[in-house]
Amino acid sequence: MKSEFEFIETIRRRYSLSKIGDDCAVMPKDSKTDLVMTTDLLVEDIDFRLDWTTPEFLGHKTLAVSLSDVAAMGAKPVWAMLSIGVPQKIWKTDFVEKFYDGYYRLTKKFFVEIVGGDISKTPDKIVIDSIVAGEVKRGKAVLRSTARRGDLIYVTGSLGGATAGLTLLENGVRYDDGAKIWQRNLLLKQLSPFPQIHAAQDLNEKNMATAMIDLSDGLSSDLAHLCRASKVGAKIFADKLPLHKNLRAIGKSFDKKLDYALNGGEDFELLFTVNSKKKFQFKNELKNHNFSHIGEVTANAGMIELILNEKSLVLEPKGFRHF
Amino acid sequence: MKSEFEFIETIRRRYSLSKIGDDCAVMPKDSKTDLVMTTDLLVEDIDFRLDWTTPEFLGHKTLAVSLSDVAAMGAKPVWAMLSIGVPQKIWKTDFVEKFYDGYYRLTKKFFVEIVGGDISKTPDKIVIDSIVAGEVKRGKAVLRSTARRGDLIYVTGSLGGATAGLTLLENGVRYDDGAKIWQRNLLLKQLSPFPQIHAAQDLNEKNMATAMIDLSDGLSSDLAHLCRASKVGAKIFADKLPLHKNLRAIGKSFDKKLDYALNGGEDFELLFTVNSKKKFQFKNELKNHNFSHIGEVTANAGMIELILNEKSLVLEPKGFRHF
Repeated sequence: MKSEFEFIETIRRRYSLSKIGDDCAVMPKDSKTDLVMTTDLLVEDIDFRLDWTTPEFLGHKTLAVSLSDVAAMGAKPVWAMLSIGVPQKIWKTDFVEKFYDGYYRLTKKFFVEIVGGDISKTPDKIVIDSIVAGEVKRGKAVLRSTARRGDLIYVTGSLGGATAGLTLLENGVRYDDGAKIWQRNLLLKQLSPFPQIHAAQDLNEKNMATAMIDLSDGLSSDLAHLCRASKVGAKIFADKLPLHKNLRAIGKSFDKKLDYALNGGEDFELLFTVNSKKKFQFKNELKNHNFSHIGEVTANAGMIELILNEKSLVLEPKGFRHF
Repeated sequence: MKSEFEFIETIRRRYSLSKIGDDCAVMPKDSKTDLVMTTDLLVEDIDFRLDWTTPEFLGHKTLAVSLSDVAAMGAKPVWAMLSIGVPQKIWKTDFVEKFYDGYYRLTKKFFVEIVGGDISKTPDKIVIDSIVAGEVKRGKAVLRSTARRGDLIYVTGSLGGATAGLTLLENGVRYDDGAKIWQRNLLLKQLSPFPQIHAAQDLNEKNMATAMIDLSDGLSSDLAHLCRASKVGAKIFADKLPLHKNLRAIGKSFDKKLDYALNGGEDFELLFTVNSKKKFQFKNELKNHNFSHIGEVTANAGMIELILNEKSLVLEPKGFRHF
């Protein structure tokens, strides 16, 4: 069966849709500015479960996933729209108000204006569509397709925490229900991700990222998307991956933690590439950020290698996909 | 229980969301242009049924409802995004491809560029979110809130056809299954509405509409939205309502047909107001369009009267609402 990525590629070609295929579409706004736009559909029991989250967390995450797409373009979020469909039984509760509270609080943090939306009834499950617009200097949006051989590969923050949080949820741990601090940290990474807007804007202002993508499906898949778009390959060093500090506490093997970091989705960190000639300038000018150098871009188009215990393995894309 | 309109008004005030409340949000684009944006959520078994429509019709209608919102601002549609969630069993079929075909064909008709979207899995039902952006000269978007006492009220096209089509569907008539011509016309009005983009742009270029809204919920409700926003009242003449020509064939009473025209949703015509001093200029300059003068704006804020058989009745908003 076709994956959603194959389907998108099919319609992109069939209808000549040149703006499809990055974290955001880029449109000219005025002589100095481009507009970037993203939309994310979240469906109950596919993307979230009501017994695992709170309406406020869900409102926050709804906006966060789109802000992360805007960050991946090196852009500044500006305004947002929100469509939400709920069944009658949810409409009767205070769910939607609490959801908006969580959503609204995150808009305030990044000075994003809520400009519109839609409300609908559904037969059974909640559905949400989040739409965010950002602005970036004309021609300066950071694409997936512009990584070059020899570029260094970096990620922001830490990896694997969101999937560890998901595993805790699957095992019955709940945020409000006597969870330990380390568990709460992992649950927050899953339920209330923080988009890397500031890191992305600093990177872009200093002209550092040659290409960028956000880690939503999982490093192995998202890096594959970036490599495909850039027609390059990559080499990743397992021992350089910044595992989330609370992964120590989960009592799993190193291989399992590595699996979370490589194939677990929803960390909503950024993966970006930097021209190796700028390595020292990068270190110097962005030392206030928590960036990790995890690998490099190779000329071996389509091949992603993982260097583990001095051996080179082929890293297959095993991140999240709907179909 | 609160209606969705009350809820939207609540969050608009609570969070000071000044751009909420019209058919589209209006944002500055460049020194000469404003951007208008709309989003519409469509949910299976609430907004459409798979056994009543075709994937192509559904793709067409998905875009048409948003184009109609753009038309209601007097704007020209420019680009669109589409989020779609489908269950596994639908993904396996050619539904999504046919849906995109219908959607794409309508984008071509109005030179709209598809720039992005999202694909998700759902547990059971199809959900679609349609997002369209339009452009209009700076400060020239036609709002709901600018009708003035004495303005004349017009509608484009004809009324009641979409609801008559819906009634046919409820009674088992299907488009492809030996339907008569008049039935097909009514079914098309429901399944494949045509957005009034050209009429809206002509109205705006000639500076004719003082206020405008599209007829999605139904005339009685949409006129009430416009009157509330403009702090005015209105008087509607029942004998001037342009009933859809094929309503003749459905064999219902005049009262029933009037009910379709007043309270039936989804005609996706435009309702607009014109300064009475421009009446003759309007007739002259826009004679190529099929506009009907159906009433006038009064100072009696919040009161909408229906003049029927020389009697004045109070017209309550009885159009579609989700909650």
